Amino acid sequence: MSTPPSWRGFASDNYASIHPDVLEAIARANAGHDVSYGDDATTALLADAVKDMFGTHAEVYPVFNGTGANVVALQSMTRRWEAVVCAESAHIHVDEGGAPEKMAGLKLWTISTPDGKLTPELLDTQAWGFGTVHRAQPGAVSITQSTELGTVYTVDEIGVLAAHARSLGLRTHVDGARLSNAAASLGTGFKAFTSDVGIDAVSFGGTKNGLMLGEAVIVLNPASAPGVDFLRKTSMQLASKMRFVSAQLLALLTDDLWLRNASHANEMAALLATSVRDLPGLTITQPVQANAVFAILPAQVTARLQQRFRHYTWDAATGEVRWMCSWDTTREDVEAFATAVATELERG
Amino acid sequence: MSTPPSWRGFASDNYASIHPDVLEAIARANAGHDVSYGDDATTALLADAVKDMFGTHAEVYPVFNGTGANVVALQSMTRRWEAVVCAESAHIHVDEGGAPEKMAGLKLWTISTPDGKLTPELLDTQAWGFGTVHRAQPGAVSITQSTELGTVYTVDEIGVLAAHARSLGLRTHVDGARLSNAAASLGTGFKAFTSDVGIDAVSFGGTKNGLMLGEAVIVLNPASAPGVDFLRKTSMQLASKMRFVSAQLLALLTDDLWLRNASHANEMAALLATSVRDLPGLTITQPVQANAVFAILPAQVTARLQQRFRHYTWDAATGEVRWMCSWDTTREDVEAFATAVATELERG
Amino acid sequence: MSTPPSWRGFASDNYASIHPDVLEAIARANAGHDVSYGDDATTALLADAVKDMFGTHAEVYPVFNGTGANVVALQSMTRRWEAVVCAESAHIHVDEGGAPEKMAGLKLWTISTPDGKLTPELLDTQAWGFGTVHRAQPGAVSITQSTELGTVYTVDEIGVLAAHARSLGLRTHVDGARLSNAAASLGTGFKAFTSDVGIDAVSFGGTKNGLMLGEAVIVLNPASAPGVDFLRKTSMQLASKMRFVSAQLLALLTDDLWLRNASHANEMAALLATSVRDLPGLTITQPVQANAVFAILPAQVTARLQQRFRHYTWDAATGEVRWMCSWDTTREDVEAFATAVATELERG
Amino acid sequence: MSTPPSWRGFASDNYASIHPDVLEAIARANAGHDVSYGDDATTALLADAVKDMFGTHAEVYPVFNGTGANVVALQSMTRRWEAVVCAESAHIHVDEGGAPEKMAGLKLWTISTPDGKLTPELLDTQAWGFGTVHRAQPGAVSITQSTELGTVYTVDEIGVLAAHARSLGLRTHVDGARLSNAAASLGTGFKAFTSDVGIDAVSFGGTKNGLMLGEAVIVLNPASAPGVDFLRKTSMQLASKMRFVSAQLLALLTDDLWLRNASHANEMAALLATSVRDLPGLTITQPVQANAVFAILPAQVTARLQQRFRHYTWDAATGEVRWMCSWDTTREDVEAFATAVATELERG
Repeated sequence: MSTPPSWRGFASDNYASIHPDVLEAIARANAGHDVSYGDDATTALLADAVKDMFGTHAEVYPVFNGTGANVVALQSMTRRWEAVVCAESAHIHVDEGGAPEKMAGLKLWTISTPDGKLTPELLDTQAWGFGTVHRAQPGAVSITQSTELGTVYTVDEIGVLAAHARSLGLRTHVDGARLSNAAASLGTGFKAFTSDVGIDAVSFGGTKNGLMLGEAVIVLNPASAPGVDFLRKTSMQLASKMRFVSAQLLALLTDDLWLRNASHANEMAALLATSVRDLPGLTITQPVQANAVFAILPAQVTARLQQRFRHYTWDAATGEVRWMCSWDTTREDVEAFATAVATELERG
Repeated sequence: MSTPPSWRGFASDNYASIHPDVLEAIARANAGHDVSYGDDATTALLADAVKDMFGTHAEVYPVFNGTGANVVALQSMTRRWEAVVCAESAHIHVDEGGAPEKMAGLKLWTISTPDGKLTPELLDTQAWGFGTVHRAQPGAVSITQSTELGTVYTVDEIGVLAAHARSLGLRTHVDGARLSNAAASLGTGFKAFTSDVGIDAVSFGGTKNGLMLGEAVIVLNPASAPGVDFLRKTSMQLASKMRFVSAQLLALLTDDLWLRNASHANEMAALLATSVRDLPGLTITQPVQANAVFAILPAQVTARLQQRFRHYTWDAATGEVRWMCSWDTTREDVEAFATAVATELERG
Repeated sequence: MSTPPSWRGFASDNYASIHPDVLEAIARANAGHDVSYGDDATTALLADAVKDMFGTHAEVYPVFNGTGANVVALQSMTRRWEAVVCAESAHIHVDEGGAPEKMAGLKLWTISTPDGKLTPELLDTQAWGFGTVHRAQPGAVSITQSTELGTVYTVDEIGVLAAHARSLGLRTHVDGARLSNAAASLGTGFKAFTSDVGIDAVSFGGTKNGLMLGEAVIVLNPASAPGVDFLRKTSMQLASKMRFVSAQLLALLTDDLWLRNASHANEMAALLATSVRDLPGLTITQPVQANAVFAILPAQVTARLQQRFRHYTWDAATGEVRWMCSWDTTREDVEAFATAVATELERG
Repeated sequence: MSTPPSWRGFASDNYASIHPDVLEAIARANAGHDVSYGDDATTALLADAVKDMFGTHAEVYPVFNGTGANVVALQSMTRRWEAVVCAESAHIHVDEGGAPEKMAGLKLWTISTPDGKLTPELLDTQAWGFGTVHRAQPGAVSITQSTELGTVYTVDEIGVLAAHARSLGLRTHVDGARLSNAAASLGTGFKAFTSDVGIDAVSFGGTKNGLMLGEAVIVLNPASAPGVDFLRKTSMQLASKMRFVSAQLLALLTDDLWLRNASHANEMAALLATSVRDLPGLTITQPVQANAVFAILPAQVTARLQQRFRHYTWDAATGEVRWMCSWDTTREDVEAFATAVATELERG
C-alpha cells in the first residue's frame, strides 16, 4: 500500500511535498507557548508581509484550505439574498462538493467560457436582473487566477473586468489558489493585478505552492468584505495554533519563495508543453501560461501513460487530459514523462 | 510584539507547542509525491491504528479543527429537520461562533448542568416532543469528554446515558477535543467508553494534545453516521495534502504518545490543584479530573496574576477562573504559578 | 371525522374562523386580472394604511405565516455571523421547528424569564461578548408582544428595553403574532409601542385575529432591516396573487376591525379568568393581559375537561394549562366552559 | 393607481382571479372552530381525493406557494450532501430568488435544453461523479410539467426519464405548478404520468389554476421522500388555519374543476397561437402544448402591444415574448389581443 518515496506524477500540485524552508519555519515557530487564534507574533509578522505585497489596506486571515478561503470570502462579500457570478469551470462550482451552496447558501450564476476567463461581455450574460426579486441578485463576481484551465488573465483583462463589475455594483473576488503561478507568469507582484486594479478580496493559495497546508483570505477593500474575522470562525476555518499556519505563509512570502516555487512549476509546464507539442496524435488545447498543460491524445495512450505516471483525464468525452507541474517537479520528471508520451503515442 | 520563547501560561492547551515526535512525523511523511485527499499510505496506516484503538468498525476521517469535526459529525447524525441536545456549557453551543447553526442548520436544545455532564434525567428535559412538527426534533445527543469544566464522565455514566439516548431513538456523539485526557483520567483505552458503551461517533482531538493541527471524526456505528466523506468535503474540512494531518494523528496513536501527553497534562492540573487548594481566599469549584482547574478567587488577585501568567476569567460575575495545563506544562511552571497565587492571595 | 359546526374550544386562536368582513374583502378583491407579487392596487392601499398606523417610514411586506414573518425579519436585521437574543419561551425558539436555525442559520441566545418578558437586566445576560469571534455575535433582540404567556409589555417597558438594546448596537424586533391583542390591552395604537419607542421591525399578525391567513413584516427603521423584499422571496413567503393577502390585512386595519376583534378576545379571556379565579383547586399563573389564561389545576380535572373543550396542557409537570380566547369566542362559550371547570373541579 | 376591474392581460396565469367555486369552498369551510395545522376534516377529505387521483400511496401536504412546495419536496428527497439536476430553464433555478440554495443548501446542476425538457441523454451530462467527494452528488432530478416553455412531456418521455434516473439512484421530482395543464394536454389523469411511471414526488399547483393560493407537496413514494411533515414546518410552509388551503385544493379536485380550468386555458393558448401563427413578422418558437405561447416579433411591436395588454418579454436579445392564458382568459380577450398583434405588426 505504501508509495515508494521515488514515486512521481503530474496529477496535481497538491501531490507535492512541503518545501524544506516551510518545514523549517514550522519548526522555528515551535518555541514554547504562544497565544492562540492569531494573536501571536508570527501572525503579526505575516500581516506586515501581506501589506508589503498587497498594499497597506490589505488584511490577511489565514485559513485551512482553498474551499474555506473561497466560502469565507464570498460570504463576506455578499448579502444574504445575493449570488456569485463565476465561470462554469470555476473550482467553487465544480470542485467544492457544493460547499458554497450548502454552507453559505450562495447561488452561483455560471458562465461558459472557452478558456476559463470571464470578460465584461461574458459577465453581462449573468449580471442582470438587479432589483427583480425573482432573480437571485448578482452581488459579487469571482474569477480564478491562474484559471482552472492553466490560463492567466493579463493585468489589463482583470482591470477591465473589475471596473465593469464595479460599475454594476458587484464586488470582485479572485480565487487565487495558484495566484503565485499567475504572478510569476505575468512577471509582476500580486498588487499589480489585484489591489491596483480594483479587486476587493483574494483567496491566496499556499498549499499548492509548497506549504503543508495554509491559505488566506486577503481583504483588499475592507468596505466590500466585512466580518471576515467572524466568518472565518463560523466557517470552521479558524486555526487555534494559528502560528503554525502563519509561519508557513510567512515563509512563502520571504525571500521570494513563492516566486521561486511558482516560476519553477511554470517552467516545468512550459518545458513539458514544448517537449510534446509537435508529437503526432497530440493536441495542446489551452495556452500554457501557468503550471498546467491540457492536451488531447488517444484514450488508449492515456490509459497506458496513467499506469506509469499519475494524472487525470479532464474530459473523457474528448480525451482531454490535465498535466500539472509543481514546485518539486524536476527536469528529469518532465523528460521521463515526455519520453513516455512520445513512446506511447508511437505505439498508438 | 514578539513573545519570548520562555513565555509560559495556563490560558489554554492550545497555547502549547508541537510535540517533537509529531513534528518529526510530519518531516518523515514529506517524502516525494503522494496522493492527495486521503488516498495515501499514511492515512491508510492511521485507519488501521484507529481500528486497533476504537474497534474494527471504526472509520477515521481526519479534519482540520474541533469545530469542523463536530459540525461534520453532527450533520451526518441528524436529518435535515432534527436538532442536537447538549449541555449549556457545550463548546458547540458557546464557543463555535454559531457554526452548527450557521453552517449546518443545527438547532441545539441546551440543558443546564452543575458540572458539564448530562444524565438520563437531564436528557429527558429536552428529549421530548417526538413527532410534533412544531418542535425541532431531537435527533442526536452530544456530550463532551472530558467536559468543558474539566470533569470526566465515568464509563458507566456514558453507558447509561447512551443506552437511554438510544432507547429514545437518539444518535450519540462525543465531542472529544480532550478525549485523551479523559482516557488517561479513567485509566482505560478509548474503546471502553465509546464503542463499547454504544457511542455512535466521536470528534477526536489532537491539536490540544501535542499536534500542530489535526482532529478526526471517528465513526463507530456507520449506520448512524452516513456520508461523512461527503460532508467533510462540503464542510470545508478536507485537507488536500492529508498525509501531513494523518501523520500527526498517527504519531499521537503510536507508542502511547496520546497517553503520555494527556497523563502529564492531567498530573500537572492535579499538582496545581493540590498546591493551591488550601490557600485561604481560594475555592476550587469543580472536581479536577482532567487537565483543567476551575477556581474562584478575588478579582484583584486574578488581575495581578494575569499580568504574570496568561489565563482566562471564566465567569466575571463570580470571579471564577480556568487554569489549563498541557502536555508541555512543566512542574516548574506549576510551582512558579502556585507560588504566585499564594503570594498574590496574601497581598489580598 | 368531520367536526360539527357547533364544535367550540379554547385550544388556540388559530382554531377560529375567518371574520365575515375579511371574507368579503377577499371576494371584493376578486375582480378580473391584477398584477401579481404585490404590484397591485390593494397592496398599495395596504401600504398607505400601514403608514397611517405605524408611521410614515413604515414599509409593509405581506407574508404567509408568522414563522415566515419572523424568519424574514430576523434575516434582514442580522448579518451572516450574528445571533438573535430572545426569551426562552419565544415562539421562534420553541414553536417553529427550528426554522430560524435551519432556514436562516440564526443562532438564538435564549433567556429564562418569569413571564415571557425581557428586561434590560435580563438582556445583559446574553448580550455580551461583542467582538469575540468565538461567541455568535448578538445582532438583534426579538421580543413577543403580547407574549407567549399572555402578558403584555407596557409602552415604557418596551421603550426602556429598546433603548438599552440600541445602546448595545442591537436591532430590535417584535414578534407581533398577537400585536393587536397587546394594543387593545394597552389602549393605544400600534405606533406608541413600536415606532415611537425605537422598534426597528415587527412581525404583524393577522391569522390569529380573524384572517384566513396573512401576516406582514413591517419595517419601521429601513436602515436596520434592509433587503426584506428580496428575503421574502428567497424565504418562500412571496404570494403571487398577493392582492388576496393584502385585502385581508387591509380589512383588518379598516374600521378598527383589528381592535374590535382583539378587544373581544381579550375581554373573553378576562371574563374566563374572573369566572374561575376563585375556584378552589385552581391557580391562575400569569397576569391575564391579553387573550390567554394560564392556570394550574389537577391533571385528572384537565383530562376530563379536555374531552369536552379542546385546549392544551402547557406544562405536564406542573399541570399548567393554556386557555386561548379568540375573536369568535362567545360569552356563551366562556360561561359553558367556566361552568364545566367548576363542575369538574368539584368532582375532584 | 387602482386597476380597473375590466383590465385584462397575458402576463401570467397568476394575474388571474379566484374561481367562484374555490371562493365558495373557502366560505363553506368557514364554519365555527376547527383544529389547526391540518388535523381538520377538510384536509382529511383532501387526502382521500389525492389518493383517488394519484394512487393509494399518495400523501398530500398542502403548502403556501410553488417555491415552498419545491424546496420542501427537494429537501426531503436529498441528503445533506446531495444536489438536484434540472433544466437550465427550471423555475427552481431562474425564478425562485435562490431559495433552493439559500434555504436548503441545494446545489443545482443545470442542463441546457431546446424546449425545457430533459431526456436520459441530457440527464447523463450532469448525473455523473457518483462517489467523488469533490462533486456535489446528484441525488434527485427535478423536471417541470408542463415546462416553463409551455411544452409538455409525453407519458413515455417521463417514464423513460424516470426509469433512467432510478437506474442511476436518483429520486424523481416533478415541479407541477401547471400539472393540470399538462394532464389536460395529455388527456390523462395525473396518475398516468406520475405514480404510474415512477415519479417519487410532485409539487402540485393550484394558484395558477384558479385558487386564491395553495399548492401541495404530493409524495408518491414515501421511502424516497421522508420527513415532509417536519420539513413543511421548518420551511415556513405550514398553514395554521390549513382547512382554508385544503378547501381550495379540494374544490379544484372536485367535479373536474382542475380539468375544466386547465383545458380552457390550454384552448385559449391554442386559439391565440392559431390566430397569429401566420402573421408576417411573427414566429412561434415553441410547440403550444399547454397554456403558453412563445413568439418572436419586432421589439417595437412588442413595446406598443405591452402598453395595451400586459405580458413579459422573455428574452430581450431575441425579441421573444411569452403570452400566458389562464382559466379566466376569454375568447374575447384572445380575439382582441390577436387583432392588436396583427394591427401592430402591420404598423411595423
